[in-house]
Amino acid sequence: MPGGEAPVPAAEHHDDGARTLAGLGEAGVLRLIGRELAVVEERRPWPEGSVGIGDDAALLPVSPGGTLVSTDSMAEGHDWLPTWPAGVRTRGFDVGWKAAAQNLSDINAMGGVPTALVMALTGPRRTEAAWIAGVARGLATALLRLGADECRVAGGDLGGADRAGLAVTVLGRPGAHGVLRRTMGEQDLAAVRSEGGAVVHAGSAPGWAAAGLALLLTDRAELEERWHALAPQDRPGPRELVRAVRAQLRPRPPLGAGPAGAGALACGMDVSDGLGRDADRLAAANGVQLWADEAWVAEAAAPLRRLGRLLEIAPEEWVLGGGEDYGLLAVVRPGHGVPPGFRVIGAVPSSSSVPAGHRLLGEAGWDHFA
Amino acid sequence: MPGGEAPVPAAEHHDDGARTLAGLGEAGVLRLIGRELAVVEERRPWPEGSVGIGDDAALLPVSPGGTLVSTDSMAEGHDWLPTWPAGVRTRGFDVGWKAAAQNLSDINAMGGVPTALVMALTGPRRTEAAWIAGVARGLATALLRLGADECRVAGGDLGGADRAGLAVTVLGRPGAHGVLRRTMGEQDLAAVRSEGGAVVHAGSAPGWAAAGLALLLTDRAELEERWHALAPQDRPGPRELVRAVRAQLRPRPPLGAGPAGAGALACGMDVSDGLGRDADRLAAANGVQLWADEAWVAEAAAPLRRLGRLLEIAPEEWVLGGGEDYGLLAVVRPGHGVPPGFRVIGAVPSSSSVPAGHRLLGEAGWDHFA
Repeated sequence: MPGGEAPVPAAEHHDDGARTLAGLGEAGVLRLIGRELAVVEERRPWPEGSVGIGDDAALLPVSPGGTLVSTDSMAEGHDWLPTWPAGVRTRGFDVGWKAAAQNLSDINAMGGVPTALVMALTGPRRTEAAWIAGVARGLATALLRLGADECRVAGGDLGGADRAGLAVTVLGRPGAHGVLRRTMGEQDLAAVRSEGGAVVHAGSAPGWAAAGLALLLTDRAELEERWHALAPQDRPGPRELVRAVRAQLRPRPPLGAGPAGAGALACGMDVSDGLGRDADRLAAANGVQLWADEAWVAEAAAPLRRLGRLLEIAPEEWVLGGGEDYGLLAVVRPGHGVPPGFRVIGAVPSSSSVPAGHRLLGEAGWDHFA
Repeated sequence: MPGGEAPVPAAEHHDDGARTLAGLGEAGVLRLIGRELAVVEERRPWPEGSVGIGDDAALLPVSPGGTLVSTDSMAEGHDWLPTWPAGVRTRGFDVGWKAAAQNLSDINAMGGVPTALVMALTGPRRTEAAWIAGVARGLATALLRLGADECRVAGGDLGGADRAGLAVTVLGRPGAHGVLRRTMGEQDLAAVRSEGGAVVHAGSAPGWAAAGLALLLTDRAELEERWHALAPQDRPGPRELVRAVRAQLRPRPPLGAGPAGAGALACGMDVSDGLGRDADRLAAANGVQLWADEAWVAEAAAPLRRLGRLLEIAPEEWVLGGGEDYGLLAVVRPGHGVPPGFRVIGAVPSSSSVPAGHRLLGEAGWDHFA
């Protein structure tokens, strides 16, 4: 873990004691992080000939199909708030989990299996050691719980910054069926254009992460007032509230669905910015249209109805416009069945005619919805 | 380039027009960055079967010796100041260059050849588009000028943050002589312990980056006052001033020295935190002592003499204590010659006796120096 030094005069810093980044020092913090990551190291021992953490770089074993790589970062005040208007505090664990999850999702969306992850953690010297340990624990726990069974932690970097930030890069290997691209191959595209194709989705129910974000961003007193103002049958219960907040703070990409399904899928990508917006991208990449089945939209929106009443938002808007669920959106290859773990949520029509009982997926599909 | 969305209410942001991140929007900024990176893409076309930027992840060709990976980040206000007390503004170009250089250095220090790089760039919405384009240009230029001839840009991420930050992850392949580790093999260690070994260094002259940092951190008026107060023969000239500032803002790791020298080196690492501190780490990793040749220290310090007079710092302190030159520090394998591009700067003594004309390298070697 090579650590960049902060070339800023010491006078700008404050040392708030041993339980902060400043108090522990770089070596102390690295030990702390190492302890939290040990559980991953234990379960994924480095094979002979590889090099783990401790040198200037790690050396990963040969990946015979090539190496997938993707990077994503999160910043305090932008991707999360230390304390949300709703009163919820974001724990280091949540940040570590989410940074891992959203990166693992990118590898999954390529039909790949994550093999290694590195992280660059930055923050003020007053950052609590427990918070940093939480980041490492959240990251390690996400690797174990989400089923990233081959993924090692291959290194990191600690640096100073005015506010906390975490950049994660994840490497992977293509699965047995090769990579899943955003753009269909020529044959698949021709077949989809002539026969049409099924639009499928795997992973957590779309909309919940967005509902969670809307909850978190609403003032607690206002939430309570709104909740009491609702008729009893319209009030969301604790389970719905918790489920939504959890979906936002600890997304669960359907790892395994990508590599298992890649052979039966013509194209795919992960849903990070919302079903509509990402469907728009997938459509544009292939010169086709993606339509959502109204029955599916209604079904996905139904359990969000009471949260929608609370926040005065049509739940369909969350389903179609909400991001950060990290599900996998794909089009089935004509002649193939729907792969396990996916469900049909719409269609690519074979002509430009409007499919019955469907609505066009795309930014326009939800922008004008509210 | 998957882009994370900022879940913060729009009211917290300000749009200062089209020439800012906010004004251009994510798609506009990605186009801008793409234009700056095109020169790398042209010279390093993606081979058949690989996947470049545009999907959820890139797919790099198979690396037969395994994949090296390292990550490093920089943050405004900590790793650089937008405007330094000396009056120098840090350009986006400088930040891109340095982020690339310090990461490439890690691969070089492992005896490796950089093959791909991803970046996560974060900043406020008011960040100038020209600054962001500069980051991409600096990064691309560093790849071309520093000789990272196989290194592609494989992806990135744009995100919001209160202050600018850049996290870079670089991948590499081991060179023809395999990886260079911090820890010697058993045979090398036994030979070094019985016969002693030469401590060698490759790359830019140590101390210049630290002198540049000291210059940058000194108030401009004070610099001018000090300069005029010096006897004419003690005043540093514009060349020395520019060389020092450039060394700090645009370090030049000796790419190629690592992989070329790895066969003749018993252990090595890059000098990011200062020769003394990093020598301490190399020594501790092997249970040996590294000593610096006083004649070399004097020779390295001599051209820094006038800068030292200006800032009232003994130039030896910069040479032994200053970081961020990103040279390569190594110990020669007994029985091998000094590899091309390296020079002998000290010795690992065969016994615990003090070698004549040498001083112990280590934090203690310079901490008590001033």
